[in-house]
Amino acid sequence: MTKQTGSEFWRDIKPIEKVFQPDAQPEVYMKNIAGDDERYYVPFTETVSSKPVWISPSRNMWCDVLYAKGPGLVSRHYHPHEVFAYTISGKWGYLEHDWIATAGDFIYETPGEGHTLVAYEHEEPMKVHFKVTGPLIWLDENGDPDGFFDVHMYIDLCKTHYEKVGIGAKYVESLFR
Amino acid sequence: MTKQTGSEFWRDIKPIEKVFQPDAQPEVYMKNIAGDDERYYVPFTETVSSKPVWISPSRNMWCDVLYAKGPGLVSRHYHPHEVFAYTISGKWGYLEHDWIATAGDFIYETPGEGHTLVAYEHEEPMKVHFKVTGPLIWLDENGDPDGFFDVHMYIDLCKTHYEKVGIGAKYVESLFR
Repeated sequence: MTKQTGSEFWRDIKPIEKVFQPDAQPEVYMKNIAGDDERYYVPFTETVSSKPVWISPSRNMWCDVLYAKGPGLVSRHYHPHEVFAYTISGKWGYLEHDWIATAGDFIYETPGEGHTLVAYEHEEPMKVHFKVTGPLIWLDENGDPDGFFDVHMYIDLCKTHYEKVGIGAKYVESLFR
Repeated sequence: MTKQTGSEFWRDIKPIEKVFQPDAQPEVYMKNIAGDDERYYVPFTETVSSKPVWISPSRNMWCDVLYAKGPGLVSRHYHPHEVFAYTISGKWGYLEHDWIATAGDFIYETPGEGHTLVAYEHEEPMKVHFKVTGPLIWLDENGDPDGFFDVHMYIDLCKTHYEKVGIGAKYVESLFR
């Protein structure tokens, strides 16, 4: 067993030689995902943007940083699948729940939940690291389905925006796994 | 369409009435998951602890905060399934990769990868928010399988520790979804 003492103890450890199975894809490493380069945040609603960090077209899943400079809204919608969230900064919540999340808070929303996301006024912008499994089913005033949003629409949205701001649509595909 | 202007615009929005499907489970909301109460961090290796925040026994998945006060190690292991990580503080990486992660960095490790996790010396403790799908297959010096660790062992580890520190084993089940 490796003796784990001294700040450089790991220098004595031999890395694994066969790191990836032959079919395995490379990892994704993205530095400081909640950084300030506004070009990476894709307008999603009138007041809220999304920066993609990982996308799985085949599983209809994506990870992003949801961003609102000031008060913001993602209108009422229903999730057939799960959602994970970790709050990086700001203040947000769902009108349907009692808690209000700030930096460091974790939320798991179970499949079969509908809600309305609100970014509240705060000295810091809202930045939330989400892992979403699509689709979002938009709901009208009466709670009836009124369209949907899924990974394929997300990819299209991101590609169009990244092409426009000069990052290039191709970049989005580098996040596919 | 709701006019999204003014810091209190959301007060005019009617929340969804039917929030959960009849079979749906409640959400998980955990405040400041990387907090300083040491009792919640379950010793995992000699130098690294894990604070569970969400556990799915049926899917062999868990979300946690992996924590190391100083230099630390999770010995070489192989992942048949995927791993997501968001770095809250500190400095860490895998001996098998070139990047070294600090606060704000996101990592996705693809199914079929083996690696050795190291927490490096840093002014802040290593705190990483992971979403793991088990099992971890431990590897020996030659890269051969040498045991495994999965959600069921994780639950047992957490229950035993939480019982010992006075939180109670039952608490762990409140994180099951």
